[in-house]
Amino acid sequence: MQILLSSIINHNRKYTELGEVATYIPELSKANKNHLGIYVVTLDGEEYGEGDFDVKFTMQSISKVVTLMLALLDNGPEKVFEKIDMEPTADTFNSISSLETRNPQKPLNPMINSGAIAATSLIYGESCDKKIERILKFTRKITGNKEIGINYDVFRSEKETGHRNRALAYYMRSTGVLTGDVEDILDAYFMQCSIEVTCKDIARIAAMLANNGILPWSGERIIPAQYARIVKTIMVTCGMYDESGEFAVKVGIPGKSGVGGGIMAAVPNRMGIGVFGPALNKKGNSVAGLKVLEELSRELDLSIF
Amino acid sequence: MQILLSSIINHNRKYTELGEVATYIPELSKANKNHLGIYVVTLDGEEYGEGDFDVKFTMQSISKVVTLMLALLDNGPEKVFEKIDMEPTADTFNSISSLETRNPQKPLNPMINSGAIAATSLIYGESCDKKIERILKFTRKITGNKEIGINYDVFRSEKETGHRNRALAYYMRSTGVLTGDVEDILDAYFMQCSIEVTCKDIARIAAMLANNGILPWSGERIIPAQYARIVKTIMVTCGMYDESGEFAVKVGIPGKSGVGGGIMAAVPNRMGIGVFGPALNKKGNSVAGLKVLEELSRELDLSIF
Amino acid sequence: MQILLSSIINHNRKYTELGEVATYIPELSKANKNHLGIYVVTLDGEEYGEGDFDVKFTMQSISKVVTLMLALLDNGPEKVFEKIDMEPTADTFNSISSLETRNPQKPLNPMINSGAIAATSLIYGESCDKKIERILKFTRKITGNKEIGINYDVFRSEKETGHRNRALAYYMRSTGVLTGDVEDILDAYFMQCSIEVTCKDIARIAAMLANNGILPWSGERIIPAQYARIVKTIMVTCGMYDESGEFAVKVGIPGKSGVGGGIMAAVPNRMGIGVFGPALNKKGNSVAGLKVLEELSRELDLSIF
Amino acid sequence: MQILLSSIINHNRKYTELGEVATYIPELSKANKNHLGIYVVTLDGEEYGEGDFDVKFTMQSISKVVTLMLALLDNGPEKVFEKIDMEPTADTFNSISSLETRNPQKPLNPMINSGAIAATSLIYGESCDKKIERILKFTRKITGNKEIGINYDVFRSEKETGHRNRALAYYMRSTGVLTGDVEDILDAYFMQCSIEVTCKDIARIAAMLANNGILPWSGERIIPAQYARIVKTIMVTCGMYDESGEFAVKVGIPGKSGVGGGIMAAVPNRMGIGVFGPALNKKGNSVAGLKVLEELSRELDLSIF
Repeated sequence: MQILLSSIINHNRKYTELGEVATYIPELSKANKNHLGIYVVTLDGEEYGEGDFDVKFTMQSISKVVTLMLALLDNGPEKVFEKIDMEPTADTFNSISSLETRNPQKPLNPMINSGAIAATSLIYGESCDKKIERILKFTRKITGNKEIGINYDVFRSEKETGHRNRALAYYMRSTGVLTGDVEDILDAYFMQCSIEVTCKDIARIAAMLANNGILPWSGERIIPAQYARIVKTIMVTCGMYDESGEFAVKVGIPGKSGVGGGIMAAVPNRMGIGVFGPALNKKGNSVAGLKVLEELSRELDLSIF
Repeated sequence: MQILLSSIINHNRKYTELGEVATYIPELSKANKNHLGIYVVTLDGEEYGEGDFDVKFTMQSISKVVTLMLALLDNGPEKVFEKIDMEPTADTFNSISSLETRNPQKPLNPMINSGAIAATSLIYGESCDKKIERILKFTRKITGNKEIGINYDVFRSEKETGHRNRALAYYMRSTGVLTGDVEDILDAYFMQCSIEVTCKDIARIAAMLANNGILPWSGERIIPAQYARIVKTIMVTCGMYDESGEFAVKVGIPGKSGVGGGIMAAVPNRMGIGVFGPALNKKGNSVAGLKVLEELSRELDLSIF
Repeated sequence: MQILLSSIINHNRKYTELGEVATYIPELSKANKNHLGIYVVTLDGEEYGEGDFDVKFTMQSISKVVTLMLALLDNGPEKVFEKIDMEPTADTFNSISSLETRNPQKPLNPMINSGAIAATSLIYGESCDKKIERILKFTRKITGNKEIGINYDVFRSEKETGHRNRALAYYMRSTGVLTGDVEDILDAYFMQCSIEVTCKDIARIAAMLANNGILPWSGERIIPAQYARIVKTIMVTCGMYDESGEFAVKVGIPGKSGVGGGIMAAVPNRMGIGVFGPALNKKGNSVAGLKVLEELSRELDLSIF
Repeated sequence: MQILLSSIINHNRKYTELGEVATYIPELSKANKNHLGIYVVTLDGEEYGEGDFDVKFTMQSISKVVTLMLALLDNGPEKVFEKIDMEPTADTFNSISSLETRNPQKPLNPMINSGAIAATSLIYGESCDKKIERILKFTRKITGNKEIGINYDVFRSEKETGHRNRALAYYMRSTGVLTGDVEDILDAYFMQCSIEVTCKDIARIAAMLANNGILPWSGERIIPAQYARIVKTIMVTCGMYDESGEFAVKVGIPGKSGVGGGIMAAVPNRMGIGVFGPALNKKGNSVAGLKVLEELSRELDLSIF
């Protein structure tokens, strides 16, 4: 495995040249676009890292998976999906039109920004601070990494420039999908996007999902198997922005990407994978990260289809 | 004229039963749906009032005309129409989709909410207070009514519930149409919507427009003739929400309606008209007010076409 | 007048360089992009031509005005506007989305392709041949030009490549806006677009509209004054594709353009104008033709606003 | 298994009352809404039928899977996906707006009508007759049922009323997605929708897909394993119209439904399933069929997630 990973990282690193680091959140533009790393956690307890697997990056949209899990734990699936639909969409992740044109005016799924903001609002905690404390605690528990925290420079950068997300949130406030203090909900949303992790951390979250909700290294159940299944299913249909369909065909693993350059992939009953490569394609996914996962899936026959 | 107006008000009052007062701004729901009034100011100095012409109501979207005039005075047409297009639309007045789907992402015209918020941001004054002071002063000057002020109950109601407008504003902030403090711009927008007037006041604004920018009673020029023409033209193509086309065919006068129940209509070179009837149709226009204007236009052959 | 027209044509001819002739109908691409002409028919019987006023071109969308008049004569306004709305739109002339997203699914107005196809279907005549015979007879009667006929090369070119219009028509067939044989209706639509005229012909149609439905030279009534008003109103709100709002502001005359390069403009109670310049801007309107009308309107104060 | 299927059919039959048979294709409205049947073909050679498993129905959208397989065999994935995207959508199966608003103007995936019409056009054969002959031969070979043919009453009904599909096809003709004779392509599309099958037939097609492209009963390879994987993946993300996301969460099996009431489901490496129940929900899927698959998936743990 180590040799395979090494080979895959090496000959896919050239693809980092084809993408660009995210710039719409100014702080993200400081990333090194040539970084590329991978970390694998198998369900029988082996762990492998290659390349820049220990470089820190912010979760960005990968946090949508954590939020969905916590929202499910706090509210149960029925209440969550009463507010948020579970249908994939070919629209971009920050699209606002579908909130206006569809009836009823629910966000389409919890992996696009509108749906994730709605999911954040469902997490217990009467304020941003309480919510984010619970999200961090939950993330640290899954990853076993007590150091995990928020990158406040990124958070401030997101908050200052996050007007499109603000538009989504106020729109949902106007239709009743959100209630309460919009800016407080947005703060929690921006903070969770700014949680700083490495490939290892997200590989461990993925391993827990791959293991049906149980931490493979300790046997501790984090979420019910049914919730793990829901989350993995939605990762397949909606996890890679408007490239989800193509990712399903080419890679075939439940995955979730973030514009920080991370991709988290959970291979049911086999392994959790964390990939990092901040050079993004036009759809917001890590260019080289996609190539790495495509090759790994082919080599180890990881597609669930 | 007085007899004609009296007859028109009398036999159109029944139509007030067909509409409903606006409820999405809670304070507006307190209006009396059976009110109906008209005020006419001719360019040769005659004035006529009938029905509930002296009942106060808030301008709501009628203020968009005042804002556009002041934005033009402050910036000139070139700068205004660099930010805001001048194309009519069949979308509703608070539509957000077109901000996303059109390229470039300009609001379509200054008579829909997005365009009016953008126009408000262009009015000189470094804060809401300064802008609104200038808007009030300008409105008092045109109407000759020094009592004109803001209904703060309506303002607070709009501000509390105006999340859809907030979504429009933050969306425009994200695309660069708006700059600066969005909440401050919105306060100015909500305040101008809450300016309280009577039929007489808006008939006087209309008379000035009908008189090519000059107050008929004093000869004072308020805006250049070219700006008066621009404003009247945009009132024809965009003034009655997504019912503008039908209003042009049936009435044929530059008009602007508001969900407070007012309609302001400027008959070029002839007269200014103010109508008030808070029972609205589905498109947000005064049901009986439309009937009154249709009959008046037919009786006096007021259509410009 | 002759001197003014000569001067206007001369110093606006340079703008023909800024546009391109239509190419999506292959036959239209053969036009000479440097052509520019104007013809004016005043209501007191004077006629003036300048530039390439006697070059033949096909009416294209200008025929939508003729079709609307005949549909009104055959059916009355109520029936026509039961099938076709009268609201302006910022969408392009061949847009299909609004047929799907609006409720009820009526074409937005008779000046866009979908609405004009629907209007064509309303013209009496059990087949394309009968309809087109009546349209031609009507056009010859208004213009006093018995030579007016169809350019069959253009017709065949439109029919062969008109798949977008076919999509609009079949969509309307699926929602019940159209009934009967779609290809037969489309043949009538393509043929009317291919009627060949000069500036003089369209200036005469415009003069009749400017004269409230009566031919100024003979006193013969062609359409009721009410229908002439409806047609002129819709020309203002919807006549210049998604540039109608800007044309109203800059020129202020009821007008209708065609991708053959013609623009027909009816100045109420004053004159009819025909302009021809096949170099088009991005929105499908004659680049130099717009400039000519803008200058003429300014010089003679022709705006109705 | 037989007992399980019997129990599932029995206590889900009540749900047939909650739906309605399709009526927009008049011939389909003749179906018996209380029918409900299932057929299972396991990869180790067992077959089980329950309820109305031997009632004939037309494939409708289930044929999109057959067409996609044949288009892949004829052209290879690269050429197919150059014409047709592979992204799921929350729009309805016959939506036309996305063809206009997306760039490039490709149909979103081969499981919605526009994409399936495009896939049909890619099948080798210079005419409808040739294409349909090959589709029938291919279907008979997979199912081992030489009796499979077209229900010409349904075909004629679809052809007569299929104006929405005609609009989609002509739109794609106008953008170059389709080339050649649109009516001929549509005939092939309508005919394939009208292929008559039973639960047994579609269970066998599904079993071949579940078996990675090989007929389990004979060992004959029908399509490469890679193509079988592509097809199953697209069935998961796009197979159940705009209910695909929910079906993935609740059932978790690659599936494809048709408005004839059939659902075909391929459980990788385990079994092929055919379900029939013509009472449809609002999204066009068999109401009771969904319930049957949900229960079967839960009982046998069939979800791939």
